[in-house]
Amino acid sequence: MDMPAANADILARRDAIVARLAEALPEDALISDPRQTRAYDCDALSIYSCPPLAVTLPRTTEEVATVLRICSDEGVPVIPRGSGTGLTGGALPTADAVVLGVARMNAVLETDYDNRLIRVQTGRTNLSVTGAVEADGWFYAPDPSSQLACAIAGNIAMNSGGAHCLKYGVTTNNLLGVTFVTMAGEIMEIGGPAMDAAGYDLLGLICGSEGQLGVVTEATLRILPKPEGARPILIAYDSAVTAGACVSDIIRAGVLPVAIEFMDKPIIHLTEAFVGAGYPMDAEALLIVEVEGSKAEIDDQLARIKAIAQRHNPTTLRESASEAQSKAIWAGRKAAFGATGQVADYLCMDGTIPTSALPETLGRMTELASDYGLRVANVFHAGDGNLHPLIMFDANDPEELRKAEALGAEILLLCVEQGGCLTGEHGVGVEKRDLMGRQYGQADLEAQMAMKDVFDPAWLLNPAKVFPLDMRNGRRV
Amino acid sequence: MDMPAANADILARRDAIVARLAEALPEDALISDPRQTRAYDCDALSIYSCPPLAVTLPRTTEEVATVLRICSDEGVPVIPRGSGTGLTGGALPTADAVVLGVARMNAVLETDYDNRLIRVQTGRTNLSVTGAVEADGWFYAPDPSSQLACAIAGNIAMNSGGAHCLKYGVTTNNLLGVTFVTMAGEIMEIGGPAMDAAGYDLLGLICGSEGQLGVVTEATLRILPKPEGARPILIAYDSAVTAGACVSDIIRAGVLPVAIEFMDKPIIHLTEAFVGAGYPMDAEALLIVEVEGSKAEIDDQLARIKAIAQRHNPTTLRESASEAQSKAIWAGRKAAFGATGQVADYLCMDGTIPTSALPETLGRMTELASDYGLRVANVFHAGDGNLHPLIMFDANDPEELRKAEALGAEILLLCVEQGGCLTGEHGVGVEKRDLMGRQYGQADLEAQMAMKDVFDPAWLLNPAKVFPLDMRNGRRV
Repeated sequence: MDMPAANADILARRDAIVARLAEALPEDALISDPRQTRAYDCDALSIYSCPPLAVTLPRTTEEVATVLRICSDEGVPVIPRGSGTGLTGGALPTADAVVLGVARMNAVLETDYDNRLIRVQTGRTNLSVTGAVEADGWFYAPDPSSQLACAIAGNIAMNSGGAHCLKYGVTTNNLLGVTFVTMAGEIMEIGGPAMDAAGYDLLGLICGSEGQLGVVTEATLRILPKPEGARPILIAYDSAVTAGACVSDIIRAGVLPVAIEFMDKPIIHLTEAFVGAGYPMDAEALLIVEVEGSKAEIDDQLARIKAIAQRHNPTTLRESASEAQSKAIWAGRKAAFGATGQVADYLCMDGTIPTSALPETLGRMTELASDYGLRVANVFHAGDGNLHPLIMFDANDPEELRKAEALGAEILLLCVEQGGCLTGEHGVGVEKRDLMGRQYGQADLEAQMAMKDVFDPAWLLNPAKVFPLDMRNGRRV
Repeated sequence: MDMPAANADILARRDAIVARLAEALPEDALISDPRQTRAYDCDALSIYSCPPLAVTLPRTTEEVATVLRICSDEGVPVIPRGSGTGLTGGALPTADAVVLGVARMNAVLETDYDNRLIRVQTGRTNLSVTGAVEADGWFYAPDPSSQLACAIAGNIAMNSGGAHCLKYGVTTNNLLGVTFVTMAGEIMEIGGPAMDAAGYDLLGLICGSEGQLGVVTEATLRILPKPEGARPILIAYDSAVTAGACVSDIIRAGVLPVAIEFMDKPIIHLTEAFVGAGYPMDAEALLIVEVEGSKAEIDDQLARIKAIAQRHNPTTLRESASEAQSKAIWAGRKAAFGATGQVADYLCMDGTIPTSALPETLGRMTELASDYGLRVANVFHAGDGNLHPLIMFDANDPEELRKAEALGAEILLLCVEQGGCLTGEHGVGVEKRDLMGRQYGQADLEAQMAMKDVFDPAWLLNPAKVFPLDMRNGRRV
C-alpha cells in the first residue's frame, strides 16, 4: 500500500502553520512536539504509521471550524480522528497533515426519552453513550467489539456495526442527525429529532464517508429501551457447511435473533486454550444465537430456533439456563481477537456476502489460505453475512506480511465475486483503497468522488484514503 | 405556487424531438397526441395540471437510457413518473418536458428467500411486490395508503412510509440496491444483495431524491417473513392531549407495535358516517395500536399496552377477539380519506414532529384552522410523529383554495418550528417547494443542489420541483 509523498511546500511552512493554529486555539488544544504527537502516528492498523505535522484537540464545534478554516486557507490536509481504534488506517496521518482529534469532545448534550434520543459530542465513546442512559433502562444499539474505546465520530465515519446489529441495524439505522463542519469551516445541521428530512438525504451520505466530507462534531442518536432479558444458545456442527445451512434456515424462517455469531474450528481451539469457555472441541463450526425480549418471547423464539437447529443434527446444543451460563457461552466469542493475538500477529479482514453464499465462501477461503501457506481463523456476524477472517502471520517477517496482505485482498475480492462487498463495518481507509477499483468501475467512482468535490473541492480532508490513487482523474493524491 | 414558463425554443422544436424519440423507441412506447397524453397531465395533486410535450413508456432499462440520452442531447426536461399517485405534484409536467413513465416495467426479476430479497422493475406496484411472495409466507413492509396503485419507483423517489413503518422502517430501510440511469443515459448499479457498500452511500442519497438525480429502473428490496398473526386494539380518550400522552408512554416503555394510528374527533365522525365501523362517537381522540408476532408475543405486548392505556382512563378500550373484529377496527381508519372526500375537497398535508410535541402541535393546529375558518381532520401515524392533516375546502371557490394552501403552509411551518420536518413520506414536489427556504438556509440548500449539479449538471430532471425557484443561484428554474 503506497502513501503519497508529503507536500514539500507545506513541510517548509510548518512553523508558520503551527504558529497560526497556536494563536487561534487554547494552549492545550494543540500538540506540535513530535515526541508528544507519537500517539497519533497510527490507528489500530498499526503496521502503517507516520508522524503528522501537528495534532489539534478542540473542545467545541467552533474550535473544530477554526482548525478547518485555517487548514483550508493554508492548503493543509486534515486527518479527522475519533479514538484511533479503526482497523483500516482511516486515521493514518501523512507528514504534511494536521490530525484533528475529537476525543476531548465527549459531553452528553441532551437525553430525551419521550423521543427516544440522546445528543452527544462525537468524541464520546460508544459504550459511554449507553452508560449515560442505562440507569433509566435504555441503551444505544450498535456495539462494535471496540465499544469500550471507540468514539461515535469513528462509528459514524465507518458506519460501524457489531454483534447485535442483525436486529437493530448498524450506525446509519440509529443516527438521526449531526452537526457537521465542512473543510471550509462552515457549520451545518443535518437531520434532527423528527422522522425523515425534506430534500436530499445528506445524513445517509455523510454516515460512512470516512471523514472525507466533513467533521461530525455532534450526533443525535436513537436509543432503545433495554429488553427485559436476553438468552444465548450454543449450537455446534461437524461441518461448516451445515452450520451455514442452519443460519440460512433461521433467517429464512423469519426468526430475528439479536445476534448469530459463527466461529470455525481454528478459532474455537484458539479461544478454548485462552479462556476455557467449555466449547466443544470436536466441532467444526459453532453458532451462538442470542434472542431478547420478555421471558415469553425468548421461550417462543428459542423453541423455534432449537427446532431448526435440531433438523441439522447438531453435535452440541446448549441453551443457557442462567446468567453464568450465558457469560460462559459468550466468553470465548468475546475473547476471540485477544486469543488470536496471543499466538500470532493477525490482520482482521471485513467483507460481506449474501448469507446464502456462506458455505461456498468459507470453503474457498480455506483453499486460498492453504495456497498461501497461512492460517485463517473465522469469527463473524453470520446473520448479516459480515465476515471477519483473521489472517495469522509473523509481523517481523516482511515476506509474511506481504503474503498476508495479498491473501486478505484475495479474500475480499472473493466476497465481491460472491455478490458481496469489500467492507461491512471497518471501512475502506488505506487498507482497501486500492481494491475499490475491483468493486467499482471508473464511472461509479466518479459519482462518489464528485460528492467529495462538492464538500471538499481541494481534497484536503483525509485525502489519501478510500479512492485508488490511480483512478482520481487529476484530483489530489 | 408558480411554475416556470415553458422554454419557447423547445416548443418550437417539438416535432423534431418527437420524431427522434419515435425513431429510437418501439411504436407503443411513445405517446405524443395531446388527447392521449391527458392522463399524464397531473398526478394526485390534481389541483395543478399541464399537458407535457410527449410521454414515453419504456419497457427496459436500455430504453430508459435511450430516452434520457435523447432528451439530454436536445436539452429537454424529463419528468419521471411511477403510477402518478403522488400527493405533492412530483410528477407534474411542464409543457416543454417529456414524461418518462415506468408503469410498463413491472416484472419480478428474482426472488431469493435465503437472502430475504426480491428484485423487481420499479414500475411494479407496491402491493404486487408482496403479492409475488406472500404465498411463500413473505411480505414487503412499507405500505403507503396508495399501495394498490403506487409504484416502487415513486416509493423510492419519495422515501414512502405507511402505517406499519413504525416497526419496519420506511423505504430507505428496506431498499438494498438499485439500477439507476443518469440524465446522460449512463446505467449504474448501486448497492446490492449484501450488507453495506464500500465508499459513499449513494443509495441513501438516491432514495428520497424525488426523481431529480436519475431514473431508478430496478430495485432490490428486503422482504420479511409474514408474522404468525396480528391483533389491533382500539383505545379512545376524551382529550387529544391524553391520547398523545398515551402514545408517548407506549413509545417510552419500549413496546414496539407495528402501528400506532391516531384519529381526531372530526375524522372519527366523518368515517363513522361513511362506513359505520362502530367507533365511539363521544371520543375526542382514538388510537389504533396493532402488534404482530406469535400468539405469546401478541398477548405479552398487548397486556403491556393495555396497562399503559388504562393508566390514562380511556373512555373505550376494545381488543380485537376475532378476524372480523380486527377488520372492523381498521375499517374506519382505512376509509378515512374516502370519507373526507365524500363531504369536501381536501388537501392532505404531511409533516413530522418529535412524538413528544404531539399534544401542543394538535392544539395549535386547531387554533390555526379556526383562524382561517376551515375544518381540519387528523388521521396519522402517531408512533413516528408523522402527521397527515386533511384540510377541507371547496375547490370551486378559488379563494378557499388559496386559504387552504396558506393554512397548509402554516401547519407545515408549525411542524418545522416544533423540531420536525416539512414532509414525512409524500415528498416536497411542487407543493412544498417554496417552503424549503423556511426549513433550510441557503448554505444547506446549496449543499443539496450541488448533489443535483453532479448527477444532472443541466438540471433537466424534474427541474421545477423541490428547490425554491428564487434560491437556485443561477441554476435552471
